[in-house]
Amino acid sequence: MLIVMKSGATEEEISRVADAIRELGFRPHIMPGATRTAIGLTGNQGALDPVQFENLPGVAEAIRVSKPYKLVTLDLRPEKTVVKVGETSIGGDEFAIIAGPCAVESRESTFAIAEAVRRSGAKFFRGGACKPRTSPYAFQGLGDEGWKILSEVRENFGLKIVAEALDESSLDQAEQHVDVIQIGARNMQNFSLLRRAGRSKLPILLKRGMAAMLDEWLLAAEYIMAEGNYAVVLCERGVRTFAQHTRNTLDLASIPAVRHISHLPVIVDPSHGTGKNYMVTPLACAGAAAGADGLIVEVHNDPPRALSDGAQALTFAEYQQLVDEVTAIRQVVSARQSRVAHPR
Amino acid sequence: MLIVMKSGATEEEISRVADAIRELGFRPHIMPGATRTAIGLTGNQGALDPVQFENLPGVAEAIRVSKPYKLVTLDLRPEKTVVKVGETSIGGDEFAIIAGPCAVESRESTFAIAEAVRRSGAKFFRGGACKPRTSPYAFQGLGDEGWKILSEVRENFGLKIVAEALDESSLDQAEQHVDVIQIGARNMQNFSLLRRAGRSKLPILLKRGMAAMLDEWLLAAEYIMAEGNYAVVLCERGVRTFAQHTRNTLDLASIPAVRHISHLPVIVDPSHGTGKNYMVTPLACAGAAAGADGLIVEVHNDPPRALSDGAQALTFAEYQQLVDEVTAIRQVVSARQSRVAHPR
Amino acid sequence: MLIVMKSGATEEEISRVADAIRELGFRPHIMPGATRTAIGLTGNQGALDPVQFENLPGVAEAIRVSKPYKLVTLDLRPEKTVVKVGETSIGGDEFAIIAGPCAVESRESTFAIAEAVRRSGAKFFRGGACKPRTSPYAFQGLGDEGWKILSEVRENFGLKIVAEALDESSLDQAEQHVDVIQIGARNMQNFSLLRRAGRSKLPILLKRGMAAMLDEWLLAAEYIMAEGNYAVVLCERGVRTFAQHTRNTLDLASIPAVRHISHLPVIVDPSHGTGKNYMVTPLACAGAAAGADGLIVEVHNDPPRALSDGAQALTFAEYQQLVDEVTAIRQVVSARQSRVAHPR
Amino acid sequence: MLIVMKSGATEEEISRVADAIRELGFRPHIMPGATRTAIGLTGNQGALDPVQFENLPGVAEAIRVSKPYKLVTLDLRPEKTVVKVGETSIGGDEFAIIAGPCAVESRESTFAIAEAVRRSGAKFFRGGACKPRTSPYAFQGLGDEGWKILSEVRENFGLKIVAEALDESSLDQAEQHVDVIQIGARNMQNFSLLRRAGRSKLPILLKRGMAAMLDEWLLAAEYIMAEGNYAVVLCERGVRTFAQHTRNTLDLASIPAVRHISHLPVIVDPSHGTGKNYMVTPLACAGAAAGADGLIVEVHNDPPRALSDGAQALTFAEYQQLVDEVTAIRQVVSARQSRVAHPR
Repeated sequence: MLIVMKSGATEEEISRVADAIRELGFRPHIMPGATRTAIGLTGNQGALDPVQFENLPGVAEAIRVSKPYKLVTLDLRPEKTVVKVGETSIGGDEFAIIAGPCAVESRESTFAIAEAVRRSGAKFFRGGACKPRTSPYAFQGLGDEGWKILSEVRENFGLKIVAEALDESSLDQAEQHVDVIQIGARNMQNFSLLRRAGRSKLPILLKRGMAAMLDEWLLAAEYIMAEGNYAVVLCERGVRTFAQHTRNTLDLASIPAVRHISHLPVIVDPSHGTGKNYMVTPLACAGAAAGADGLIVEVHNDPPRALSDGAQALTFAEYQQLVDEVTAIRQVVSARQSRVAHPR
Repeated sequence: MLIVMKSGATEEEISRVADAIRELGFRPHIMPGATRTAIGLTGNQGALDPVQFENLPGVAEAIRVSKPYKLVTLDLRPEKTVVKVGETSIGGDEFAIIAGPCAVESRESTFAIAEAVRRSGAKFFRGGACKPRTSPYAFQGLGDEGWKILSEVRENFGLKIVAEALDESSLDQAEQHVDVIQIGARNMQNFSLLRRAGRSKLPILLKRGMAAMLDEWLLAAEYIMAEGNYAVVLCERGVRTFAQHTRNTLDLASIPAVRHISHLPVIVDPSHGTGKNYMVTPLACAGAAAGADGLIVEVHNDPPRALSDGAQALTFAEYQQLVDEVTAIRQVVSARQSRVAHPR
Repeated sequence: MLIVMKSGATEEEISRVADAIRELGFRPHIMPGATRTAIGLTGNQGALDPVQFENLPGVAEAIRVSKPYKLVTLDLRPEKTVVKVGETSIGGDEFAIIAGPCAVESRESTFAIAEAVRRSGAKFFRGGACKPRTSPYAFQGLGDEGWKILSEVRENFGLKIVAEALDESSLDQAEQHVDVIQIGARNMQNFSLLRRAGRSKLPILLKRGMAAMLDEWLLAAEYIMAEGNYAVVLCERGVRTFAQHTRNTLDLASIPAVRHISHLPVIVDPSHGTGKNYMVTPLACAGAAAGADGLIVEVHNDPPRALSDGAQALTFAEYQQLVDEVTAIRQVVSARQSRVAHPR
Repeated sequence: MLIVMKSGATEEEISRVADAIRELGFRPHIMPGATRTAIGLTGNQGALDPVQFENLPGVAEAIRVSKPYKLVTLDLRPEKTVVKVGETSIGGDEFAIIAGPCAVESRESTFAIAEAVRRSGAKFFRGGACKPRTSPYAFQGLGDEGWKILSEVRENFGLKIVAEALDESSLDQAEQHVDVIQIGARNMQNFSLLRRAGRSKLPILLKRGMAAMLDEWLLAAEYIMAEGNYAVVLCERGVRTFAQHTRNTLDLASIPAVRHISHLPVIVDPSHGTGKNYMVTPLACAGAAAGADGLIVEVHNDPPRALSDGAQALTFAEYQQLVDEVTAIRQVVSARQSRVAHPR
């Protein structure tokens, strides 16, 4: 159920609707918009009668939502969500660049990379303190030491930190040290972790699963939002197909597809999406051209010696080239972006 | 590193090798076999010198393992693993049938189904107390009440219970109430949960992920075994492909493929593997014919009214038909099974 | 449009309906059944009024067909089609085994293999005179010499010959030398070749394309049937997915899926479907258990020296083992087959 | 075998090498380059001794090629191929835009669309006279009348015509009426048709098959080139995956992947690649940003009434918007293009 308030509805009227929802044992999700406020209702098992809400003062209409997702939709919020991260943001006018190593390997290399990232004008730094690895015997990240180094990058370079949480306990840790918490592709349907992320105060970067349908990805975001955390950024990182010239097949059509349904920002990961460094810049540019709100990319001071995913990391020079090209392409498409406020 | 003991090696000699491994800071995994004992060594970052182990008394040879997995392999254990579950087992001479509803819905319906399962001669009962659901608003299982009902089925019907654990806390609960813990497809690379399963005393049924390569699936089993729990049963449940005439594409070639590399038992799930009840019996039989050690299948007393996955559940009559056909097919292929003790 | 005749309709009444269809500029397809005759009508662009047919004598009803295929369906012909090949057949009570080398390489080896095939009791011999090869520089088959050898096998061993036609000119040749013409996976949507096959007097073995949806496969059969050749055998040979432990992923659920919609026989190709010889027998058995009407399998007198696809060919001993197991499994499932004359 | 001539080699020396190749019963493929000429040799079954060529005057070296393809590679021709089409070209400095309806439907609508295409500055017009349709009962194109209308567009609008040939007979017809012959995705491994295209004097636009690996696509081009037609343009048009938010999954990483191996130009088809008109412009821009040499796109004067593929056709206004955005993006990436003359 979706309750749309009249454009002049007062704070009091909005609160009254929220109270009415709670009294019925359900949960209200208040989404203020540019011209009107919408209130999502979750927790009901069956259909509800809209009339009981439409009679409340300030309510324009109550709409039954037949889709499996509610909070992620443009029905609930026709304007794009801008996810604030301190003084910067993802989903607004500026193209968000998140760059850094796959894994935090040492203070020295991490600081060297952070320096290059700051110099490029990017606002976000990525780096893993704990890494999901296919083999139990592979390098699993520095752990505590890694979290500490990330905190230091934040202090010393003024960059916002994006790092992955693998489970509830690493999410607790991430909350102490970083600005945006990443949920990885392998955990996209780890529903307990999604619910925990929904109870965090930090924005969540939700990667698409390797075999995720569009609906499943949006419903994973819905899991987070249903717990009250509306600051979700989606990330296309490629899906698994028969093709073997890349590590994954980057499905850039998912960007306009998400835009068509949802108000959430969506970014692209050309590093995992291709797995080959010579493809990263072309595909990063392609992502920007397709309308992504930003990108997350792996840079390393010495790619051949990286402890994980070296084959896809950019050198500093390649990275700077990427930033220049992507920035120019963003300017071309930003006109389109503003034109399609509500594509339907 | 894999240390193969001489066929006449004593308990003392085996202990001494294990101690030597621990003294180096690594972990020994003792695997007794029909003719000789092998000891897997995990925890090393780089290559080790085999000579230091080959000089110990009772050691036949020390072999460097270049594959990413060790403990799951026929190198470590040339005989098939038989996973004991009380007085019954999976992977031995008898074809293991695990049957029951998708979710535990009520005591009444659960008992009715358990009665039909016992009558068919199956030894295992399946049923979910907590369910992973794509939507946060779908039925998530009965929880505590569900676990209790499963315990009662165990007591009243003498069936071994197989149920899914979604996260560490539900795994704690499962350990109180069931006999085999299932890790679902969506959690196949939830490495924290795999490690927790590796510290359980109960056998683990590990479903293949929707987009899992063979190596990734075996490495997920390796995660569990590396923690010391060697009672792992693999389950093929279909993978995601372009095909739309089924919910998933059941990849039965994974059965001989696993057999070719690993000593672990492997079963098949024709219910999730097809998603359509009229396909369940043909594909169950196909799984048995391909050499599976058992199957897990959904049965319901009233499929059209099932709270989840009703379209793929069998009626009691269809289920009994399946049991009869599968049993006959198992007899045909059991000769082949024993012939290929070690296929390479 | 589908015109169902009354059960006692005379030959004359049937002819009259066919004439009426031709007079309208369309094409009638007469399909006699056990209890009634159905007449498919093709060639219309838009909807037709059923009344004009229902008023003709002997007509029970005229049904608008909304599905894209008509002639392949159980609506048109509720009994399974038995494709006659001389005195033997595919789709009847006997499980059809088609065995032989990938390519015809020499008279000597071909005769040696034919001898083993005859000895096994199989009725069909396969072998390619012209081969579709991914590279222009790979062995393309013996051509004329190959067709001649196949003719000799037919004469000398009394086996029915199945061979692939790559284009219209090789189909002309095939018609001179073989009993069943195979259209390969790469040509499944070569519509000109399908139409040419539809004008042949010989039965057509139509392999599923590497990325073919069920509907596309059935429509490829419809192309053949729409030209008047109703002797079509479908063949599941695996589809392309992300999995890399096999050459293709054998989708055995397509067997009950075809059965659910179509009266055409369907067989399985475990050789191309797996690409590895140790998987061929398990998957052949799985195909039989899933309800296939037969199988097509590669056998070679010296697999390591085969000029194409040696890795998937069986030795004579392995092949004989396969025949024994498959025959026993067929007996188990033949009861099921007869039970589900019309699954809907 | 690949014979690289010295930079100063004379015409006479080159001819002599070609003659020597012919005398051995093989076929020479002379590829002049900016600084040196290379001569590909095809037709040999086994390895050849390089020395017999290296001793000829003017030869720098003879290299054994272990890859399955030779003529498509950067080894043979390090500069990008520019395919000339009259006074214009594909693969050169200018981004090639090929636009028009899916099928030629009438002179009136075709002329209206051609007018919009010419107005946009595009040099190429697309339109199908014969269409490959999944169903035998769907609109198959106007045939003769269609070819005639395409000829008239060529005369009246000065546009180069691109149209698909379905089989050898329609390829004969296409040669009379069009400037570039398209081989469609379903025919990518129709090897007889590829060979016929290789004997044509016209450039060939070769679409990637629905399930084609990179190597298979390049080898399909090799089939055409091995017959002597070196004017091949590759076209990425999406592949079949599990994703259902698009008709196909456009795999833009194939563009840098082709670039890494081959000198052939590669363009993108965002219309078939997505199947939804609101995605066409974002993905067209993404293709240009990824480094494509051009695009082929469906435009229609009245998309909802198009006889085929209306859902993916652009209106004139949408199309003009696409041209403007793509042109601006091409300018951004053209610097990158020239920089990576030879990416390895």
